[in-house]
Amino acid sequence: MNDTGDEKAIRDLMSELKRALRDRDAESLRGLYADDAVTYDLAPPLQLSAADPYIAGVRKWFSDWRTPIEMETRDERLHVGDDVAFSTSLSHMRGTKVDGEVDIWSRATFGFRKIGGEWKIVHEHTSVPFYMDGSFKASIDLKP
Amino acid sequence: MNDTGDEKAIRDLMSELKRALRDRDAESLRGLYADDAVTYDLAPPLQLSAADPYIAGVRKWFSDWRTPIEMETRDERLHVGDDVAFSTSLSHMRGTKVDGEVDIWSRATFGFRKIGGEWKIVHEHTSVPFYMDGSFKASIDLKP
Repeated sequence: MNDTGDEKAIRDLMSELKRALRDRDAESLRGLYADDAVTYDLAPPLQLSAADPYIAGVRKWFSDWRTPIEMETRDERLHVGDDVAFSTSLSHMRGTKVDGEVDIWSRATFGFRKIGGEWKIVHEHTSVPFYMDGSFKASIDLKP
Repeated sequence: MNDTGDEKAIRDLMSELKRALRDRDAESLRGLYADDAVTYDLAPPLQLSAADPYIAGVRKWFSDWRTPIEMETRDERLHVGDDVAFSTSLSHMRGTKVDGEVDIWSRATFGFRKIGGEWKIVHEHTSVPFYMDGSFKASIDLKP
């Protein structure tokens, strides 16, 4: 596959990720990740080192939503090599959970490997910064 | 340069980053980053899109330390392609700032590009998760 093909394949993967998130489709989401994907999520723990426990957590989290989960991205950058790639973006997540409205901007880094000819997510890092004013509060109110 | 050479070059870069951090050597640190590096840091804002303002912030932060900044990493994974690479690790930062001791584990993702034959950091994402208990406190007390 040429460079353009790889780039398109990764963009398609990320579109499918947004679709699966919106539809709270944990099974499709699982198929996008390598088995040994390392994830650094908004919630503890510091890391998970396999896709199955990550998706198990996502599935539980999906059950807390009343509406589709809308994810809009901004400032997307995609770096594609022969079989290693990564992307960076700001992500705007919106919707309604059982305990209220969600409207939060975060930062997202994805790492990809081409495995058996197919691009998979091998790493996901999502975060917000925190305030250095002594409160140590997560900065969930920032906008780009 | 062969695969092993690229991997070694990136590991050397990361060793030099730790050295520069320990010695609070902002000038050497600056040399490791591409001019248009995108950084997602522990502190706001959500992102910076150039190395100069990032290093300016680091330089100011260095002045708040009384001791060398020790950075130990764990669970390091390095994915190296032809001219794109990324790494993931947990980072343990320790030392003494003017306002007290620091002892914190965070997650770090670095993205690299080979530019003019030399590997540079084009992306850095450092974070801690936050507690989903309604406090929205940054999880600065986690250990791997």
